[in-house]
Amino acid sequence: AEQDVQLPDGRIIEGYLKAHAPPYAVIFALDSANRVVTIEEYKHGPGRVVVHLPAGYMELGEDPMLAAQRELLEETGYEAPNWTLLGVFCQDGNREMGWGHCFLATGARQVTAANHNDLSDIRTVLLTPAELKKAIYGGRVAVADIVACIMLGLDAVNNGLPADDDM
Amino acid sequence: AEQDVQLPDGRIIEGYLKAHAPPYAVIFALDSANRVVTIEEYKHGPGRVVVHLPAGYMELGEDPMLAAQRELLEETGYEAPNWTLLGVFCQDGNREMGWGHCFLATGARQVTAANHNDLSDIRTVLLTPAELKKAIYGGRVAVADIVACIMLGLDAVNNGLPADDDM
Repeated sequence: AEQDVQLPDGRIIEGYLKAHAPPYAVIFALDSANRVVTIEEYKHGPGRVVVHLPAGYMELGEDPMLAAQRELLEETGYEAPNWTLLGVFCQDGNREMGWGHCFLATGARQVTAANHNDLSDIRTVLLTPAELKKAIYGGRVAVADIVACIMLGLDAVNNGLPADDDM
Repeated sequence: AEQDVQLPDGRIIEGYLKAHAPPYAVIFALDSANRVVTIEEYKHGPGRVVVHLPAGYMELGEDPMLAAQRELLEETGYEAPNWTLLGVFCQDGNREMGWGHCFLATGARQVTAANHNDLSDIRTVLLTPAELKKAIYGGRVAVADIVACIMLGLDAVNNGLPADDDM
């Protein structure tokens, strides 16, 4: 929808366009062997089979972390005891689109079968951090928000999360 | 536009929606002191002043690396002798949007004044890798493709780029 925008210095720009999409959760989940729970699936955005992370739209009013836990369970059958929000980012700097909530989950383990939509050909694949980085640099991870969540997750694994007083 | 999609297993799904946007370049540029050339500016997607990277749409038929060099020069007045493509990612896993071409540039130095659109209040800020990571975890980097390019750039700085035979 078109809208007028007031810049920080007071000037008005008319007729800016925004594109909206629902908020969603993306999950970087590690199992007890520090393998990342990834999904190999066809994604229609890139138009090919890609290495993806568990991710999905939040339901209306749903808590982001509960949405992330629900999506991880539905898409892979995994649960995890430890959850941390890595960041919240929109998809388009100019038009907004949806806000992705990126979570780190550790200690993940499979508790049930994945519950896939019958229309999709989806496979859970456990990848080491090195394998996942190769997948990114090899062009097999095709969506920017997934790359962002993976790289933040790998950074947290390698360097720990920043302390609150570092912010 | 609506379109029908054939999955890898042969099944057809009708009426999938795609949203298109032009391809664009994002630049993670380091100066000779290993500071990252960032831009502090209002972005209408997130709707606030953010820490951003130089970025912009490619012109029709423009080579991605030439577009990246043009955008870096226009937005910051910097040039760089060394350029590497870090990856190409779309903005939305379900609907596509635009494809961002993420570049690493090293040895960047300012050769002229930034050429900002008169409507924008834009400031070039040199940040150390540690400062830039704090900006991400503090919520001051708000767009997923920018986070992806920053984290790939920082990884290349810390760990080097993967060799071709690692792919």
